[in-house]
Formats: sequence, structure tokens, C-alpha cells
Amino acid sequence: MNVNGKHYRTIWIDPKENTIVKIINQRELPHKFEIENLIGSADAEVAIRDMYVRGAGLIGATAGYGMYLASLEASIQNKEKFNSYLIQVGKRLKATRPTAVNLALAVDRQLEAISKEESLENKIIIAKETAKKIADEDADSCRRIGEHGVKLIEEISKNKDGGRVNILTHCNAGWLAFVDYGSATSSIYNAFDKKIPIHVWVDITGPWNQGAKLTAWELEKHGVPYTVIADNTGGHLMQHGLVDLVITGTDRTTIAGDVANKIGTYLKALAAKDNNIPFYVALPSSSFDWKMKDGIKEIPIEERDSEEVKYATGLTKGNKIERVLLTPKESNAVNYSFDVTPARLVTGLITERGICKANEEDILNLFPEHKK
Amino acid sequence: MNVNGKHYRTIWIDPKENTIVKIINQRELPHKFEIENLIGSADAEVAIRDMYVRGAGLIGATAGYGMYLASLEASIQNKEKFNSYLIQVGKRLKATRPTAVNLALAVDRQLEAISKEESLENKIIIAKETAKKIADEDADSCRRIGEHGVKLIEEISKNKDGGRVNILTHCNAGWLAFVDYGSATSSIYNAFDKKIPIHVWVDITGPWNQGAKLTAWELEKHGVPYTVIADNTGGHLMQHGLVDLVITGTDRTTIAGDVANKIGTYLKALAAKDNNIPFYVALPSSSFDWKMKDGIKEIPIEERDSEEVKYATGLTKGNKIERVLLTPKESNAVNYSFDVTPARLVTGLITERGICKANEEDILNLFPEHKK
Repeated sequence: MNVNGKHYRTIWIDPKENTIVKIINQRELPHKFEIENLIGSADAEVAIRDMYVRGAGLIGATAGYGMYLASLEASIQNKEKFNSYLIQVGKRLKATRPTAVNLALAVDRQLEAISKEESLENKIIIAKETAKKIADEDADSCRRIGEHGVKLIEEISKNKDGGRVNILTHCNAGWLAFVDYGSATSSIYNAFDKKIPIHVWVDITGPWNQGAKLTAWELEKHGVPYTVIADNTGGHLMQHGLVDLVITGTDRTTIAGDVANKIGTYLKALAAKDNNIPFYVALPSSSFDWKMKDGIKEIPIEERDSEEVKYATGLTKGNKIERVLLTPKESNAVNYSFDVTPARLVTGLITERGICKANEEDILNLFPEHKK
Repeated sequence: MNVNGKHYRTIWIDPKENTIVKIINQRELPHKFEIENLIGSADAEVAIRDMYVRGAGLIGATAGYGMYLASLEASIQNKEKFNSYLIQVGKRLKATRPTAVNLALAVDRQLEAISKEESLENKIIIAKETAKKIADEDADSCRRIGEHGVKLIEEISKNKDGGRVNILTHCNAGWLAFVDYGSATSSIYNAFDKKIPIHVWVDITGPWNQGAKLTAWELEKHGVPYTVIADNTGGHLMQHGLVDLVITGTDRTTIAGDVANKIGTYLKALAAKDNNIPFYVALPSSSFDWKMKDGIKEIPIEERDSEEVKYATGLTKGNKIERVLLTPKESNAVNYSFDVTPARLVTGLITERGICKANEEDILNLFPEHKK
């Protein structure tokens, strides 16, 4: 999407220098917009592990490019042991953030593609092509999600006689979490580009504040009207008719339509239900867990460092990015990263193949290849 | 309640120097525990306006003591115009935070009491006595709330075979918001002192983080086990059986039982309902609005400075209290301070006269003097 009028993806190969991969450094956002170079597979590893890049789609794409960088390294340093070097890098990449499915998928896809080629030259060519394909497919899925989802927004605007559609979103399921477009934001960008009047309520999304840091920055840079709100605010807005539609992303959705997403999503879904407001979840089909049914019982919930709850990170008066302690030093805190919204609270799922209800039958009708 | 083993109220007259009023400076909590002197009515004004003290009960008590300080000033500087000076100070005190009902009540009560005395000496004596009465009555109401509310906790512990009762609270409705005990926390302190095993989930309560700053500090200092959580977390905990009871305070409750409280209370009430967890609101009867019925339509919701949403305040590495910017500089934000939880989501109200259901009939049975 656009940053100050210029189009960006979150990751790309340097057009001047084919052996360098470029990323947006998300650690400093929204305060500093920095492009970083990944000049070797070790850089890709660090970028994923230390969260220069984050979000399931983008982690997968970065792993894909990381394997391409590994193929370059192997050709120079280690001609004899090309394949074993790539397997070794693949293992290291997978270990950076073990829960993201896309990461392992990207590594394995690269290993398979590379193993099919005979010459080192062709192995490198195919690694580069595959990395680009992984990224392109991610962007393409997200773009299609927007083409389907925009119809919901159009419909609401029509019902309001062309009035402004107020959309609430939680966390960052934006283009920064993917290669382009985003999942939850894709319909929003599509509507904006179509000049449908929209306005986005951005949940600040504590404890890590992805909404304030990333979603607000994305929307600001692309020019989409938005307002940041405390996580506590959504219910009040819904009670007063100030929200027309909720769209969130998901980290994993079961075949029964239970949605794991950033902690707090469940509370917004409850408020949407209580106020009769449509609650949609946008996802590329790679986020379905085809083996799981009961999300609350089965989806493991990551528990992160409690320091993330006790501290907030932002820009000081002196223009330094610093963290400040919010609680007493001695406080206990817990930091569950996700919660599960039961399917009964989800109006529908927006996928790259279209919109369906959040139940097994409707999901499988859209993705019949996953029928047993 | 206790701070490092010593009993404190939030406001008191200096035992060594009758003309000085002492307060806990809540602006620096939880990072610095400071006692400040109010040596004149202007200090009381500043203390309320600039939030050295906050919370409906404590604001009222501070206004009461402020009028006592004014009576001392009037006797020295302005013997002839004693009454008019007090009326003037009363007006200034009322203007500091125009929405808090307790403030106006305290000022008017002092003016009436003082006007009944003839001699200046007696006027000062009665001003001091009335200030103390206002504070004592606040503490007494809160203490009684705890005596009623503790029965709920005892009952739950019994049903868990003496197991630990997990109570979730939102914002600060603790002793820091009153003179002592608090409203929501009073039952908690009572249970703790009775050695009923309890543990409190403290919502951080963005944007101003009263939970992290004040409730966590109170519980820490009194020794009550607690854990700070992001505001997004309560629903997940409830889904997993980790919350037995929710108790919040209220800024205004209608005669029909609709509860205005810190923004986000409604979301927790929805989650409690969805998971069949009792949701109680604790209040001294001074927080009832006997004239209002429909809280969502009628209760005015204060909108505060949006900077409170964009920034978080805390302690830097260098031990300075500083605020940091969370969002892009250009971001719009809105800051609604309260929301309204409809009576249908409230299991009951804990008042100084006992516990009742959140409906007009049951409320008026407990407070028959307000029947029309």
C-alpha cells in the first residue's frame, strides 16, 4: 500500500542489486520509517526472531526470501554441500518463531522446489522465483479478500444513503502483517480506493499496542480516515450507533468457525452481537486449521512475557523510543496473546474465494478440497 | 487501608497542627508515595482540579476539608465578611470538577452547617467537625459495603471447598477513590482480613491506566494477591473458569439499575453474562441518581482530552515519570471516559444497606425514602 504517496510492499528484492532483500523495519514504527537490507540468511533469521517483520503472511514471505539468500550463500561458500546447507538454514528459520504455520510452509516449499533442480545456477533461479511466488500469492490472496469484503461495505453505505461506513478493527491485520493489502484492512483499502466514504475505529490493542503503532500508521500513510480508541471504548461506540461493521483478522480459525485472534477480539464480538452489528473475520485460507473443531478447548494460547503488560513503549519528549513502567515494580502480570471467539458470534468469514458463514458446512463448500 | 503495614486514609487533619490537612498525592502513584499538605483552601482547589486527589468520595471529602481551611482564612483575613468569603470559596471548589455530585453536596453541607453558628469561633469548630463527618460517613458507607459484599465471596469460597476466589475489577474503585475501604475493593479487603483465600485480576484500565497505577498499588501495599492484566484479557479468563466474580464501582447508577462506570465496564459485563459469572456493582447510595431511568439515553458521558489515549505515562529507566507517544503524531483519537452497563447485565448492587437486584423495585425497597 502507499507510504507518503509511494507504493510499498513489506518485503522485496532490491531492483538494483539482486542479492539484497529489503524490508520495512516494523520495530520503530510508527515513529521511524526505515528500510533495512537483508544481505544473508542470518539477517532473515534475525528479522523474524527479533520482530523487524511480524504477522503470519509476512513471516512466511521473509522465510521464503531467507531461503533464496541461503541459496546464494551456498553457491559461493559451499558448492559441494548446497542442499545440506539449505536444510540447515531452513531449520534455523523454522526455529525463530515456532508457532507460525506459514514459516514452516515457506521453508518446506523452497526445499522441495530447489531439490528438483540439478544445476546450482538453476537452484538459485528457482529459489528466487519461489520466494517471489510465495510473496505474490500472499499479496494476491489478500487482494481477493478485499474484493469480496468491499461488497459488505458498499451495501452498508447504500443502506445509509451513501453515508460514511464506520468500521472497527482490532490489532493489526493490515498490509504490514502480510506482503500487501492485509486481511482485515484489504476491504477497507479497496473501499477507500473506490471512494466509498469510510472511517476506521482503531483499537489501540494492548498490551503491545499493535493498533496504535501499526494499524494507525498504515491508515495514516495511505490516507484512510481513522480514529484511535482505547480498547475499552468499542462497546460504548456500538451502543450509540457509531459502528456499522467489525472486521478483524485471525491467527487460526477452526473448521467449525471458531476464531483465534489477538486477545480482546472476543469482547468486541460480544458487543457486536449485543448491538446487532455484523462481525466479520478476514483470512487467507492458509489460516484455517482443517483438523480442529472446538477452538476454545483446542487452540493453544501463547503466553508472552508479562513485562509487555507492565511497560508501554513509545516516543519520549526527547524523541527517543523508550519504555515506561505503568504498574508498581513488584506487580504480577500475565500476558495471554490470543483469545477465541466462538463461531456463534461471527457473522461471516471473508476469504480469497468469497464470504461464507462461520460453520463447517459453509466453510467446506467454499473449500471442497478439504472435505474428508 | 495499609501502606507498608501502617494504616492510612486518603485525607486527614495533621494531628500535630490542626490547621493543616494532609493528602496522599495520587499523581505520582504507583512510583512515588508522597504526602502533601493543604495549608489553605486554594490548595484544596488545586488538589481537586489537578487530580492530586480523585474519585467521587474523596473529591467530596477534600471539598469538605477545603471549606474548613476557608473558615480559618476567613477568621484571620476577613472577619466582617466571613460568610461571603466561604460562599466564594465554595463556588471556586465546585467549579474545579463540575460533574462530581459529592463535591457540590459537601460544599453545600458545610455552608449550611456554618451559617447556623453565630460566633466565628463556633463557625470554625463546626466547619472542622463537618469536614470530619463527611469523611467519616464516606469511610463508614464503604466499610458497610464490604460487610455485605464479603458474604458473596465467602459463599463462592465455600462452593469451591474453601478454594481461592478470583475476583476481576476494572478501574480504581478502591480506597484511593474514597476516604477508606473503597467501594469495589471494600469486600475484597474485608475478605482478605478474614483470611478468605482471594486473588484479584486488575484490569489495567486504559487510557489512563487507573488499574495499573492505583488499584495495583493499593492491593500491593495492603498485601492482597493480585495480577495485572491488559483490558483485553478478561473475556479469555472468564471462558477458562479463571474468574469467579466481577465487582466494579460506578460513577452514577440510575434508579432502574443502569450503571455508568469507567469505559470498558460494559464489555466485562457482557463477558460475565456470556460465561455465567456474577457481575456486581458496589456503591454508596450517594452514587444513585434517583431521577434517572435509562442510563444509555440519559447519562452524559464525559469526553476527555484525546492526548490521554495517544500517550502513556510511566517511569523511565532513569526513574523519571514521563509520558511516551504510542500512536503516529498525526493520529486522531477520542477519549470517552465512561460507558453504561444496562441493568440486565448486572447481577446485583452492593450498597451500605445491603445487596439488591439492579431494578427499581428492589433498589427502592432498600431505600424507601426515595419512593415518590
